[in-house]
Amino acid sequence: MCGIFGITGHAEASNLTYLGLHALQHRGQESAGIVASDGHGLRAHRQMGLVADIFDAPVLAGLPGQSAIGHVRYSTAGGSQLKNAQPLFVQYAGGQCAIAHNGNLVNAAALKEKLEADGAIFQSDADTEVILHLLARSRQGSFEQKLVEALRKVEGAYSLLVLTENKLVAVRDPLGIRPLVLGRMKEGAYVLASETTALDLIEADVVRELEPGELLVIENGVMRTSKPFAEPPRLGRCIFEQVYFARPDSVLFGNSVYEVRKRMGMQLAREQPAPDADLVIAVPDSGVAAAIGFSQQSGIPYDVGLIRSHYVGRTFIEPQQSIRHFGVKLKLSAVRHVIKGKRVVVVDDSIVRGTTSRKIVKMIKAAGALEVHLRISSPPTKWPCFYGIDTPSRQELIAASHSTDEIARYVTADSLGYISIEGLGEAVGDPSRGSFCTACFSGQYLLGEMAGSAQEANKLTA
Amino acid sequence: MCGIFGITGHAEASNLTYLGLHALQHRGQESAGIVASDGHGLRAHRQMGLVADIFDAPVLAGLPGQSAIGHVRYSTAGGSQLKNAQPLFVQYAGGQCAIAHNGNLVNAAALKEKLEADGAIFQSDADTEVILHLLARSRQGSFEQKLVEALRKVEGAYSLLVLTENKLVAVRDPLGIRPLVLGRMKEGAYVLASETTALDLIEADVVRELEPGELLVIENGVMRTSKPFAEPPRLGRCIFEQVYFARPDSVLFGNSVYEVRKRMGMQLAREQPAPDADLVIAVPDSGVAAAIGFSQQSGIPYDVGLIRSHYVGRTFIEPQQSIRHFGVKLKLSAVRHVIKGKRVVVVDDSIVRGTTSRKIVKMIKAAGALEVHLRISSPPTKWPCFYGIDTPSRQELIAASHSTDEIARYVTADSLGYISIEGLGEAVGDPSRGSFCTACFSGQYLLGEMAGSAQEANKLTA
Amino acid sequence: MCGIFGITGHAEASNLTYLGLHALQHRGQESAGIVASDGHGLRAHRQMGLVADIFDAPVLAGLPGQSAIGHVRYSTAGGSQLKNAQPLFVQYAGGQCAIAHNGNLVNAAALKEKLEADGAIFQSDADTEVILHLLARSRQGSFEQKLVEALRKVEGAYSLLVLTENKLVAVRDPLGIRPLVLGRMKEGAYVLASETTALDLIEADVVRELEPGELLVIENGVMRTSKPFAEPPRLGRCIFEQVYFARPDSVLFGNSVYEVRKRMGMQLAREQPAPDADLVIAVPDSGVAAAIGFSQQSGIPYDVGLIRSHYVGRTFIEPQQSIRHFGVKLKLSAVRHVIKGKRVVVVDDSIVRGTTSRKIVKMIKAAGALEVHLRISSPPTKWPCFYGIDTPSRQELIAASHSTDEIARYVTADSLGYISIEGLGEAVGDPSRGSFCTACFSGQYLLGEMAGSAQEANKLTA
Amino acid sequence: MCGIFGITGHAEASNLTYLGLHALQHRGQESAGIVASDGHGLRAHRQMGLVADIFDAPVLAGLPGQSAIGHVRYSTAGGSQLKNAQPLFVQYAGGQCAIAHNGNLVNAAALKEKLEADGAIFQSDADTEVILHLLARSRQGSFEQKLVEALRKVEGAYSLLVLTENKLVAVRDPLGIRPLVLGRMKEGAYVLASETTALDLIEADVVRELEPGELLVIENGVMRTSKPFAEPPRLGRCIFEQVYFARPDSVLFGNSVYEVRKRMGMQLAREQPAPDADLVIAVPDSGVAAAIGFSQQSGIPYDVGLIRSHYVGRTFIEPQQSIRHFGVKLKLSAVRHVIKGKRVVVVDDSIVRGTTSRKIVKMIKAAGALEVHLRISSPPTKWPCFYGIDTPSRQELIAASHSTDEIARYVTADSLGYISIEGLGEAVGDPSRGSFCTACFSGQYLLGEMAGSAQEANKLTA
Repeated sequence: MCGIFGITGHAEASNLTYLGLHALQHRGQESAGIVASDGHGLRAHRQMGLVADIFDAPVLAGLPGQSAIGHVRYSTAGGSQLKNAQPLFVQYAGGQCAIAHNGNLVNAAALKEKLEADGAIFQSDADTEVILHLLARSRQGSFEQKLVEALRKVEGAYSLLVLTENKLVAVRDPLGIRPLVLGRMKEGAYVLASETTALDLIEADVVRELEPGELLVIENGVMRTSKPFAEPPRLGRCIFEQVYFARPDSVLFGNSVYEVRKRMGMQLAREQPAPDADLVIAVPDSGVAAAIGFSQQSGIPYDVGLIRSHYVGRTFIEPQQSIRHFGVKLKLSAVRHVIKGKRVVVVDDSIVRGTTSRKIVKMIKAAGALEVHLRISSPPTKWPCFYGIDTPSRQELIAASHSTDEIARYVTADSLGYISIEGLGEAVGDPSRGSFCTACFSGQYLLGEMAGSAQEANKLTA
Repeated sequence: MCGIFGITGHAEASNLTYLGLHALQHRGQESAGIVASDGHGLRAHRQMGLVADIFDAPVLAGLPGQSAIGHVRYSTAGGSQLKNAQPLFVQYAGGQCAIAHNGNLVNAAALKEKLEADGAIFQSDADTEVILHLLARSRQGSFEQKLVEALRKVEGAYSLLVLTENKLVAVRDPLGIRPLVLGRMKEGAYVLASETTALDLIEADVVRELEPGELLVIENGVMRTSKPFAEPPRLGRCIFEQVYFARPDSVLFGNSVYEVRKRMGMQLAREQPAPDADLVIAVPDSGVAAAIGFSQQSGIPYDVGLIRSHYVGRTFIEPQQSIRHFGVKLKLSAVRHVIKGKRVVVVDDSIVRGTTSRKIVKMIKAAGALEVHLRISSPPTKWPCFYGIDTPSRQELIAASHSTDEIARYVTADSLGYISIEGLGEAVGDPSRGSFCTACFSGQYLLGEMAGSAQEANKLTA
Repeated sequence: MCGIFGITGHAEASNLTYLGLHALQHRGQESAGIVASDGHGLRAHRQMGLVADIFDAPVLAGLPGQSAIGHVRYSTAGGSQLKNAQPLFVQYAGGQCAIAHNGNLVNAAALKEKLEADGAIFQSDADTEVILHLLARSRQGSFEQKLVEALRKVEGAYSLLVLTENKLVAVRDPLGIRPLVLGRMKEGAYVLASETTALDLIEADVVRELEPGELLVIENGVMRTSKPFAEPPRLGRCIFEQVYFARPDSVLFGNSVYEVRKRMGMQLAREQPAPDADLVIAVPDSGVAAAIGFSQQSGIPYDVGLIRSHYVGRTFIEPQQSIRHFGVKLKLSAVRHVIKGKRVVVVDDSIVRGTTSRKIVKMIKAAGALEVHLRISSPPTKWPCFYGIDTPSRQELIAASHSTDEIARYVTADSLGYISIEGLGEAVGDPSRGSFCTACFSGQYLLGEMAGSAQEANKLTA
Repeated sequence: MCGIFGITGHAEASNLTYLGLHALQHRGQESAGIVASDGHGLRAHRQMGLVADIFDAPVLAGLPGQSAIGHVRYSTAGGSQLKNAQPLFVQYAGGQCAIAHNGNLVNAAALKEKLEADGAIFQSDADTEVILHLLARSRQGSFEQKLVEALRKVEGAYSLLVLTENKLVAVRDPLGIRPLVLGRMKEGAYVLASETTALDLIEADVVRELEPGELLVIENGVMRTSKPFAEPPRLGRCIFEQVYFARPDSVLFGNSVYEVRKRMGMQLAREQPAPDADLVIAVPDSGVAAAIGFSQQSGIPYDVGLIRSHYVGRTFIEPQQSIRHFGVKLKLSAVRHVIKGKRVVVVDDSIVRGTTSRKIVKMIKAAGALEVHLRISSPPTKWPCFYGIDTPSRQELIAASHSTDEIARYVTADSLGYISIEGLGEAVGDPSRGSFCTACFSGQYLLGEMAGSAQEANKLTA
């Protein structure tokens, strides 16, 4: 998963991009970068690490100009190396061009092979670079035409920001898989971001989400919109953004993320009640909204039973001796006096491999809980994502091969309940899920010949 | 404020100290350090920054031995420079000695002046170094006797860990101002820490708090205890640790911090109700327990109206334009859909200068709240702390010179209510407050001639 | 100017490349890099700075394999940035390929424009990258055929080392402009280097210089040679390598560099005597051999009048006040007791802009010399080099627009004498200069349509 | 050995100190530091490494003021760690004080023991710190009186610069062991430096050497001089400074270093001729002046047979295989065409352990020399130095236990000749050596009870 941000028409373009990336930091902590244009040329700074560590005043002063795009990366396709940090930035016959991409292309490997056979030399392992080579090789006349020709050849999820000396282009793939929202500052500058929280931070007004398949070009303060791609039969907005990825203060696909998650918790309480429990607690932070919803629906009081550390660093020295549940303990700790002697409902957003849930349940029991009833505000995660969420392979997804009862036993919970896929549809306001991609829960991939694509994607990321 | 951790009798002493400091990171983020002893000599590593950034496997491998002490520092006395990072570590006639100190000495400036007049050369600005010079100059025979002689000369708050080649010494000042707790690992190693959460992380059992005025010496696995100081007329445990500083999952002065804070919220709801409100929200994270207590007592539903960012870095590039409430926005953001159109009770732990509260109230109103009723789970903060809490001078404390009504107007709240000092006493289980220092609320400083001492302390930290 | 080194068939390939680059450090101090192959893949490390600062044991341990190539760079074409550091290293359809280049292509700009128009995306500004794109786009069957096709399209100076997973290829351009020498280690490994001094350091035997236009392929310990390019009408070995660039302990184009320079000094003494002088001194280090030759031929005693500092760093803080001849003083200082009251012959290798010579002459006079007779062991430098020597443009070359008398006055010398071009030919053992490029002195560029090419080269480096 | 520099009364004090340290870099490459005073307080910057790497414009801008002292260190007493980098800088009862020391105290260990027994806490291992503690503990009235009292207690070699907020003090020990020279800039600023070359670089005029036992105080542009120490029976200027340590362009103890070394070479040619030799070469750089003297005296032509690399870095990756004479090869290389087939006189300044000389002789023979006649411009080095030259212990000095013939055989020279100690006296202009310390050659240590002192010195540096 990644986050992107762009702005044009503002004297402090790179400063505001820096702030926007800070607000999107939850979407990727591996690397970050900004490319700015002063109308004559582009300048870039990209580095491994967190936004606040990478950029300081001298670095930002070295990125002058009225337009900038930025990117925070959580590796999906392409290894964890500086050369894969985005925005990618190249010089080609048409001039300078930078690109920031959120999503994942499913036919990148095949396109790369073909381009290399035709003499292309790739700088990175990122699937995104395929778009640049297609662009550089296009025989179309204008920059937009070249870009559209390139994008017509790629398949998959992409919310893109593209910067040239004098243009900022924003595109969202026809299925609308990843979010991208347009904002405007009081002074008139246009802003684009993965989530509304980035606009809120810099006090830009939210104008609207880009439509699936929409291409916006902003040049000299003028914005043009077009829908140059064939319309797909249905939409595929990523439902997992609602469940887990987006920040709760964002508005996503028209809904308050927090409210949707709270509704998931209420629905979960109706579908999977725990009538004898004394207490509802959340796995912070992503489970809090659903836990409060569960509490309000069920009437079981909500309390804080797990505390999250603010200082989780990147690498930890594991003690050799067996400290139980070690990894999770650095991140979470139980409030013994809240939990002790209680029958506890624990609400979390999802179970992936099951190992973390197991550690959490055991930690709560070690703190004195009499019973632990685990409630999950999404359906069982059974299928990998090929569109940009960093899920493990099917073999590692516990729900792909185990029943709910088996999982409950594995995680040592006294009971386990997931929301139904129908209930999730209700909570996101689309009971038929007709506008969402639910492939991670249902296996119904939206892009045809998914088997083939999936293989390709696997090959590329291997 | 600072956090300290020590361990003796464990092959992984510095690894476990590193973990313990990580659990105490909330007590100080300016610098951190570990000194370890292998029985023959001491080795030190100290640096500005966070524990997880300072230590890695090679650094910890360079700190071998079965005993170690560590420190996280939030500057109180002494400037923000590496030379003030602790543990302090010196070579003197008696050998090598390292010291980690939580608290603040009130007669350090006078002692330092006297020592310098006598030819002492100080390495740091830290008040703690005074203890080392007194120790080095003592004519007493044994190390403990020297240390006791030195400590009899200092006045103020100190929880101390002192490490020599073959001893670990722990001391708590006679008033018991700062916490210090003794634990033991299953394998037998003794552990000392500012808070129980550090023991929980490494799965040490909590044995007991050190008593005020107690001195523990652990040598070759054997522990001796003594109370070498004159007994004071009363105790002075810091009530602000309960209100704000300690982690909610710690047990402090015999009470669960979380439970005490929740009781403060319940008491606050009784004393300062907000009968027409629709919603209770907290200023995260320190206001959450009290907000839940307020909600449970009042029956007004609790919800998450403010989100705290996980990625608040050290320095930020302020945009030149006036983004409203900028500083607080990097740390907190409002969940508009929760707040909009509601009459909101906002629970926070304290108001210091009033500037942050004002930004928060304005942010909540900008998100659409109809009314904001601010409730504070501690009494008005009117007096500075000289014992280690980093409070500003009296002039900057808004409650020192303004009535509650004036403060309400300043922070733009529709109503403002503080818990009473009696109510706080009830919540901490000591209605007479006879065992607590409440000077920050009451002005009743426990150490005689406080005016003089306060002047001295101000001189030192200037 | 640059230096290149390669080795194949040795377990310590990257260690020896590191040593070889150290011996070639005088050929370029801007950046250095090594790419090694373990038979399965290539690994690279490139950085700005000096060889000894860039590489250490862990870095070299990360470059395993029996084959390696390395490069030290002094920027000629392409800006001073990491992306231009060599060896360039790419992945293309044929696999992995790295290239190290000494020299300068004169038709690079035109080729780059054509390649970009055809969709190529360049990673660097280096002219060398053109070769890689031509290679990647070649439709020829084998790697060598692709490489030859690519090289047939480029014009200019190139001594190249190319590394793939299992081959080391060495090529010298048909005119033989830059040197390249083949060596062999006792254990059988083949070694290639810009100068023999690199072979001496690692105790490889010198086998022979590559012939102009020769292409060597070493694979599995077997060496094949071919001459795939059209034979040019004459050779163009760079005479400036003899005068200045090569290390005096190297053997170049069959001659001892030191002996040739000493012969230049002797010839200079015959052509431009200074009969009344008391003393011959050199501008160290490149003028020493010629100064000793001048002394031996003339019978005027040689002494050390100028000392060169060993610690000249990269950037210096210029004092605001006017210290005379400041820049040169950090590098050279005069030995007053040697110079004072003497009529001094000062021997240097060349005069470029005249500014440094002027500072040196003034420094010698300030140290008390009665007369300064400047003698230059090369003819007047009147023309820029397009083949890899970093000379300034014609406008900046003082000899392009000033007579010897005018230059003497400008540099404040009492007399000035250059060796004649005929005399230089004698000294290098080729009186007709038929096998050398002397364009920097004579303006006779060897590659046709030089005006056009020169323009191109200027465009590229602008 | 170390180098020191100080200046007072100049707006660019730290910039000029930086340049001065650069000129003194040959006296110590381990660490460097500058402390500057702006009249109100002192600021320091010290770091491991070379002057040009440690200081840049922002660092120097952080050292404002009209007075500054600096130090380059080659560790003699005290380990190679940052805490031992000078100038030492402390706060004591009298204010701030920084000190830069060239030399070595022989009673430091005894004084340190006594001070620690009296409660002193040492920050460094440097013998210099003893002076600061003695100063801080002095009961004398004025700063100068305190300093004099402190210095009367120390024994050994010291040229010192001491900086306070408003004074610059310079002292030279009564024996005058280490050099210290006073200069003055045209604008009036006073400058002090270990060698005149530092004054030359910044164009300060040389005023005079400080006299042995002289103490200079410069305050508000006024200079006072005094000789507060008891006069010793004789002087002890270090003769090894003349032989090896000082830069050849410096004037030391009244003599041109270059001229003295050339005279040593002439004397050597008279004492130890090599009548059948074809060629005189030097071991660069310190042997060059003597080699030229040898050549002029003997009539045997001088040539450059060994080249010194400019790029010798700190640590090198030794190839596992046995490259002969590896270490020396990185620093020196032989010019085969000069040496081949010749009978060569090789002039070097000294033989310490003999290992390097052996490598050099073998390298010259490997380059084809028929005979190698090694001539040394100092007498056999038989005794360690306790006054600041970093010589090894007696056991490691080859001349302490081997005859000249035995050494010749060990280094594989065809003949070996040293200058006599009388001849050296002639060359330095003091035939009786009455004003020089020649202990390293003669064993006649100037400070009484040397055996004891030597033991102490050994204890301290162990």
